[in-house]
Amino acid sequence: MTLVMTSNPEAPGPRDRMVDSARALIQERGVSGVGLRDVVAHAQAPRGSLQHYFPGGKTQLVAEALARADVVARAVVGAAAADGTGAAAMLSAVVARWRAALTDGDYARGCPFAATVVDVAAGNEALREAAATGLADWRSDAAAVLRRDGFPAERAASLASLLQAAVQGALLQARAQRSTAPLDAVERELLPLLAPPAVAR
Amino acid sequence: MTLVMTSNPEAPGPRDRMVDSARALIQERGVSGVGLRDVVAHAQAPRGSLQHYFPGGKTQLVAEALARADVVARAVVGAAAADGTGAAAMLSAVVARWRAALTDGDYARGCPFAATVVDVAAGNEALREAAATGLADWRSDAAAVLRRDGFPAERAASLASLLQAAVQGALLQARAQRSTAPLDAVERELLPLLAPPAVAR
Repeated sequence: MTLVMTSNPEAPGPRDRMVDSARALIQERGVSGVGLRDVVAHAQAPRGSLQHYFPGGKTQLVAEALARADVVARAVVGAAAADGTGAAAMLSAVVARWRAALTDGDYARGCPFAATVVDVAAGNEALREAAATGLADWRSDAAAVLRRDGFPAERAASLASLLQAAVQGALLQARAQRSTAPLDAVERELLPLLAPPAVAR
Repeated sequence: MTLVMTSNPEAPGPRDRMVDSARALIQERGVSGVGLRDVVAHAQAPRGSLQHYFPGGKTQLVAEALARADVVARAVVGAAAADGTGAAAMLSAVVARWRAALTDGDYARGCPFAATVVDVAAGNEALREAAATGLADWRSDAAAVLRRDGFPAERAASLASLLQAAVQGALLQARAQRSTAPLDAVERELLPLLAPPAVAR
């Protein structure tokens, strides 16, 4: 029986599916708008499995969804940091990825960290911290790319903060107006700031 | 009796208070996290008054709260447009206002348009449009200031989009990490972009 159930090692189990479903639903409806029953249904998981896998309830499930989102969000920036892509190419890659996600998904899904901050930053300290960690990790990766491009450490941190802020805000604008134009504007306006300083002046 | 009820023209009536309460609670908990009972309680309004004043239910109440937020949000930028303040001073005024709001309010309240987008952009078309209108109005005012500073219309629109995105994103970051440093970074990095073009080059 076990052999049958695990015959496809690629197929995620119910626990994994619930974490992924929570992440997807939070991106679409925020944290407050997602009920545990929604997650179980979306993940096609057995009814009683939530309590079994997530004894810490919704906070545990959302925290795990944010931890997974952290891994996903860092993939583009982390790849840029690892393969020597410069900061300008990194920004374009980040924007391209969101542009595709928005147009492929009918503008339904945004950033899960933003969704968490807006809904529960004032009401759930554990989730506020999970969102803060996810955002800080991304900035840390981006700052590393900027430092390698020649920006001094303090300036790199400041620019990484601006890049993240601008992309986050553009995502809100894009979902509000159902258009990728805000992402285009951010990319167009910020790319000149990312020219390596040794070349720029 | 009417005389008694309106004896203090400064005191807002229950309808006004409910719209203000909805706005405040949405800023703190998002749209999905705010129940109609919460609004009635926060506004100290009579229990049955909600149905009386807002026959359209939660969507009507939230739409009116967003319309009021639109007026409030445009105050700083609109003042800059009216009194001849340049774009750099406008950005600093916007950032200063949010910095004060965050530190005075224990980082509990963010932008109600952001809260609406994150929670219901995919699920409530009327509220998505209300948020889009609020965001567009602010950008329109900011672009007018930039044009008066000498930026060509297209560039002014693009820069206004970036300014809004960066401030929105910085608000998310600030609430996540309970610090105004992200607003400082955005202001520091963007001010140089706002030097009137005739002077800059």
